[in-house]
Amino acid sequence: MKRVNIGLLGLGNIGSGTYKVLEQNRAHIEKTTGIDLRITRILEIDTARDRGFAVAPGVFTQDPDDIFSDPDIDVVIELLGGIEPATTFMLSALNVGKSVVTANKAAVAENYEQLTDAAERAGRKLRFEASVGGGIPLIGAITESLYANEFTELLGILNGTTNYILTKMGEEGRAYDDVLQEAKALGFAEADPTADVEGHDVANKLSILMSLVFEKRVRPEAIPTIGITAVTEKDIADAAAQGCVIKLLASAFRNDGGVECFVQPTWLNKDHPLADVKNEFNALFLKGNAVGDLMFYGKGAGPFPTASAVLGDVISIAKTL
Amino acid sequence: MKRVNIGLLGLGNIGSGTYKVLEQNRAHIEKTTGIDLRITRILEIDTARDRGFAVAPGVFTQDPDDIFSDPDIDVVIELLGGIEPATTFMLSALNVGKSVVTANKAAVAENYEQLTDAAERAGRKLRFEASVGGGIPLIGAITESLYANEFTELLGILNGTTNYILTKMGEEGRAYDDVLQEAKALGFAEADPTADVEGHDVANKLSILMSLVFEKRVRPEAIPTIGITAVTEKDIADAAAQGCVIKLLASAFRNDGGVECFVQPTWLNKDHPLADVKNEFNALFLKGNAVGDLMFYGKGAGPFPTASAVLGDVISIAKTL
Repeated sequence: MKRVNIGLLGLGNIGSGTYKVLEQNRAHIEKTTGIDLRITRILEIDTARDRGFAVAPGVFTQDPDDIFSDPDIDVVIELLGGIEPATTFMLSALNVGKSVVTANKAAVAENYEQLTDAAERAGRKLRFEASVGGGIPLIGAITESLYANEFTELLGILNGTTNYILTKMGEEGRAYDDVLQEAKALGFAEADPTADVEGHDVANKLSILMSLVFEKRVRPEAIPTIGITAVTEKDIADAAAQGCVIKLLASAFRNDGGVECFVQPTWLNKDHPLADVKNEFNALFLKGNAVGDLMFYGKGAGPFPTASAVLGDVISIAKTL
Repeated sequence: MKRVNIGLLGLGNIGSGTYKVLEQNRAHIEKTTGIDLRITRILEIDTARDRGFAVAPGVFTQDPDDIFSDPDIDVVIELLGGIEPATTFMLSALNVGKSVVTANKAAVAENYEQLTDAAERAGRKLRFEASVGGGIPLIGAITESLYANEFTELLGILNGTTNYILTKMGEEGRAYDDVLQEAKALGFAEADPTADVEGHDVANKLSILMSLVFEKRVRPEAIPTIGITAVTEKDIADAAAQGCVIKLLASAFRNDGGVECFVQPTWLNKDHPLADVKNEFNALFLKGNAVGDLMFYGKGAGPFPTASAVLGDVISIAKTL
C-alpha cells in the first residue's frame, strides 16, 4: 500500500478533529483509495491536553523545521489559524517541495497570490477546500466539475454564527443581543464574536471565492462589508411582512463592466433556495451560463466537517504522489 | 496552448448543447485552463438538421472506427444514449487508449464493471458526472472532496419529470394524468414517459451512486422500484395534512448488515431540505460520518446543464494529458 506521511501544524479543535476522523475512517480510506495516510509529526505546544486519543512518543515537536526538513513528509496540513505565522509556515513548506492543505480562510484571503505563486513555482499543490463552507465540497466543484461555465451570480450564506442568530431572531421574534448571548452559551458564537458578526469572516471567504469563481482578485478589506449588529426585530418583521427573510449574504454579480461584490444583510424572498438555510448551516448559490442555478448546502464549520474537507484535499494530493 | 482533440458520438440535443457550450465558453475555458479543446470528428447520421451552428466539412462521419483509429483524438464523448451500441463504442474507445466521457446512465448502470475494468486495464479515464443529476457536480464531490467520509444515508430527487408532476399535483391539487399531459406538452415529459414515471431512470442513477457512495454494486433491475403512476390527489392531500410532501426518492441506508436501497414515492417532512426541491430541479442529500448533512441542488437534465458536466469531465481529463 502507498504510504503518505503528513506533518500537522496545530492540534487544537480542528487539528484534533482531523486526527480523529483519519483514525476513525482509516480502514475505509485505505480500502477505497489504497493509501496509508500517517500523521508523523505534529507542531503543537500544548502536548499535555487530554484530546481523547494518544499521540505516539516523538510525534510532537515545537520546532516547525522538524517538519519542513523531514524528507519523509509529503504533505503539510496547516490548522493554526490566523494570518501569521501560518502564512510563513505554508510558504516554507511549499518552498521545500511539500504540498500544503489548509483550512485558514484569513491567511488564504490575505496572501492569495503569494501562496498560489509559491505552490506554482514549487510544482506542488496548495488546497484549501475547508477554508470556505467547511465540509461542503464547493471549491473542488468550482475548480473541476464546473470549469466549463462562466458564472454570472454568486450568493452565499457562509457564516454559521450569524445565520444562527438571524434564524433565531426570525423564528422567535427575539432581539439580537439576547440571541447572541444564547449563541455564546451554546458554542455557536465565540467569546469575541467580532469577526463573525461584523462580516469579516464572510469577507475573507468571499475574497477566496472571487478568485475561483470570477478569476478576480479582491482583497478582503476591499469588499464593502456590513455585519448584522444593527439588524433589529423590526427589520426582520418588515421583511417577513413582504414574504422575505433577512440573511447575511456574500454577493457577487457579473456586470458589463466587470464583477461587483459585497457582504451585507439582505432581504431574500422566501421562495429562494437560500431562504430555507437555517441555524448554523451554510450554503452557496451559483448561476453558471451552462449549468443554470446550483446550490450546495451543509455544515460550514466544526471539527468534523472541516476534517472532511481537509482530508479530502490530502487524499486528492496523495493520489497524485 | 495545449490542444486536446475530441471525438463526439452523437449530435442530438445533448451533443448539440455540448458543442454550443464549448464554442460559447471557448475563450473562458482557454483563458482559465490554457487548453484548446477541439471536436474534430462527430459520429452522426443526421448531418442535414439545422442545429443553429455549422459543422466544418470532414468532421461528420458515419463510421465509428474513423474516431477510434484516429491517433490525434485523445478523448471520446459518448452522447448516443441507450445501452447499445453505446457500451460497445465506449469499450472500443478505451481499448485503443482513449479516455471516455459519457452522460449515459443506462449504459453505465448496466455495464459498470465492464466499463470501469476496461478503463483501468487501459490506464485511461472513464468519467460520467452527467449521468446522475445532470449539471450538479455530485460525482466529482463524492469521489474526491468527500473521500474521507463513510456515508450512512443517501436520499435523492433524481428525475425532473416525476418531480415536476408531483410538484404540480401538490401545489394545484390536480390529478396525475392531467399533469402528465401538460408536462408532455411543455417538454418536461417524453412522449413515452415509462422510464421516468415507472422509476427506471432513477433506479439507473441509484445503481451508479451505490457503487460510488457505498462501494456496493447493485444492478438497476435488482433495486426495488415503484414509480409514481399510482400516486393520487388523496395521497398527496393526506401527506400534506401531516405536514409532509410526497417525492419520488432514491433511498439508501447503511445498516449493520450492509446497505439497503430502493426507489419509491416517499413522505418527506416539510422541514427536510429536499422538501423544497420543486418542479424539474434535482437534489441529492447525503449523510457522511465526518461531514454530517449535505445537499446538492440544481438542474438534473437539459442540454446545457448536461454539457456543463460533460465538459467539466473533459477538462479534468485534458489537464492530465
